[in-house]
Amino acid sequence: MRNEHLELIGRVAEALKSKESINTVYFVACGGSQAVLMAGQYIFDKETTIPSHVYTANEFVYDTPKSLNEHSLVISCSHSGNTPETVAATKLAREKGAMTVALSNAEGSDLWNAAEYPIHYDWGKEVSDSDKNKGILYGLLFTILNILQPEEKWDVCLKALDQLTDLSAKAKEQYKDQASRWAKENKRETLIYTIGSGINYGEVYSTAMCWFMEMQWIHSGCIHSGDYFHGPFEVTDFDIPFLLVKSIGNTRFLDQRVEDFSTKYSDKMLILDQADLPLDCVAEEAKPYIAAILSGVVIREFVEAIAFERGHSLDVRRYMWHMNY
Amino acid sequence: MRNEHLELIGRVAEALKSKESINTVYFVACGGSQAVLMAGQYIFDKETTIPSHVYTANEFVYDTPKSLNEHSLVISCSHSGNTPETVAATKLAREKGAMTVALSNAEGSDLWNAAEYPIHYDWGKEVSDSDKNKGILYGLLFTILNILQPEEKWDVCLKALDQLTDLSAKAKEQYKDQASRWAKENKRETLIYTIGSGINYGEVYSTAMCWFMEMQWIHSGCIHSGDYFHGPFEVTDFDIPFLLVKSIGNTRFLDQRVEDFSTKYSDKMLILDQADLPLDCVAEEAKPYIAAILSGVVIREFVEAIAFERGHSLDVRRYMWHMNY
Repeated sequence: MRNEHLELIGRVAEALKSKESINTVYFVACGGSQAVLMAGQYIFDKETTIPSHVYTANEFVYDTPKSLNEHSLVISCSHSGNTPETVAATKLAREKGAMTVALSNAEGSDLWNAAEYPIHYDWGKEVSDSDKNKGILYGLLFTILNILQPEEKWDVCLKALDQLTDLSAKAKEQYKDQASRWAKENKRETLIYTIGSGINYGEVYSTAMCWFMEMQWIHSGCIHSGDYFHGPFEVTDFDIPFLLVKSIGNTRFLDQRVEDFSTKYSDKMLILDQADLPLDCVAEEAKPYIAAILSGVVIREFVEAIAFERGHSLDVRRYMWHMNY
Repeated sequence: MRNEHLELIGRVAEALKSKESINTVYFVACGGSQAVLMAGQYIFDKETTIPSHVYTANEFVYDTPKSLNEHSLVISCSHSGNTPETVAATKLAREKGAMTVALSNAEGSDLWNAAEYPIHYDWGKEVSDSDKNKGILYGLLFTILNILQPEEKWDVCLKALDQLTDLSAKAKEQYKDQASRWAKENKRETLIYTIGSGINYGEVYSTAMCWFMEMQWIHSGCIHSGDYFHGPFEVTDFDIPFLLVKSIGNTRFLDQRVEDFSTKYSDKMLILDQADLPLDCVAEEAKPYIAAILSGVVIREFVEAIAFERGHSLDVRRYMWHMNY
């Protein structure tokens, strides 16, 4: 991680040490950024006793949780730094006395100025993955966790993030051909569901809402592996495509159950098993977190491949950026 | 509400009074039952300072939140009372010392026996709506809230539930013809999205996952009004159908914004505005809660109408009940 980023995260760490208590953590953003933050809520929920919640920014603004106060930590995120709902939510949180941390690619943006502790992340092809949004978020989270409820594992996990660039390159190479084959076979599909669980739910949420619906105009819906058998699975048929992220974490059994059933009744299951990811050199404690980030890298390979086959650039929008709404 | 039900809820109230502290509330179920409980999480989140979370039962079992302990209140629900994941989650919660309350239509079922405080609800055409699952859940919630963080409004809301049967009948009558027209116009649709926010999110979640996907094999996805503009709205087109529940609560602005945009670009928006519901005789404080329940009643009218037009009974399944999975 670059020193500039370490310093920004360090400021948050120092501030937290001097704070009496944080009794709630709110993760607040919109769309893809909200999806990225879902991993944070998951980690707090499963690894700490500090309550945490995820909100789409405008619900946080118009229907503010009653617990928001000076003992709250609010972590928001906007790539452009000018998502109005997220800026408003961050301002509101700061007015309420909460500690506000905002992640953005844009220094000096409205979000950057709204938050007490803005944190920059890099973006683009040539930058290190540990300095991109997820690398920085996890770095921030592991640092915060080590202060709020210290455990040795958080140091181990923090170090593991330095491997992200190499591991991402490996993962891309590993899935390149499969992604291309899948894209050719599925380029005429008008609907592709996504399924996942645990820390990976945010990744399959953004795959449905952002990659497929927003950037490919492919219909989609996001299904939690645990809920698949309680309604959604009735749409499963030989010609219905699904993308399933199969976790190496505690919810693997839920994902396995989906795989065992769905592969019997659909010929179009794409199963991305985190057990196949290049994680041998990653510390045990860090594996589920690194796997969650790499799953996003792998999904992007598949999405870029299908975008190419469909001649539908991931940069095309028909409403976003073209009008006010 | 029937005396038997009042007594069962009364047992929970007595137990709570004698408890030192409840520091977290967990709502745990699967599919449609989980969707019903989402309203409970919403109310705790927005009306109290007690942290609450919703889980699909198997995530709760396989990836248990760290805060689950003897200071937790766990509310689970299963209509049949034999949903294995929900029974297992309730047993686990009880083992951990949590106070366990379970709602079910089936007295003596596995779930009934697993929970320390089982609560029965009625089901069917001829029973009072205040004794059905949602009437009982809200009755339980208002009672619990009045003990944990007392407010006069909870008594008012509790009384308002007695109006449910009359209001449901009125609402059904009011939407009967529109539901039939909508069903005729949309019976050939293969995909219908649902959109909502705030306390109504659970209702649009179950509309997508259970009514459409499970019981009609119509493809669907559930979109939060606050996230619609951050990805999903790019699939909006003249021929894409959506069902939007427009809240009378704090998130109405979010829903209004979806309506204003989507009706410009889709000719197939079904907007169910809670402001049109027969709520004149309902106390102000209770209106958003009664509206949330009535929205479910109204949606059911539309779903039954489209099921009739498609000749696809709501009782038909191809996997559920026919095999082990």
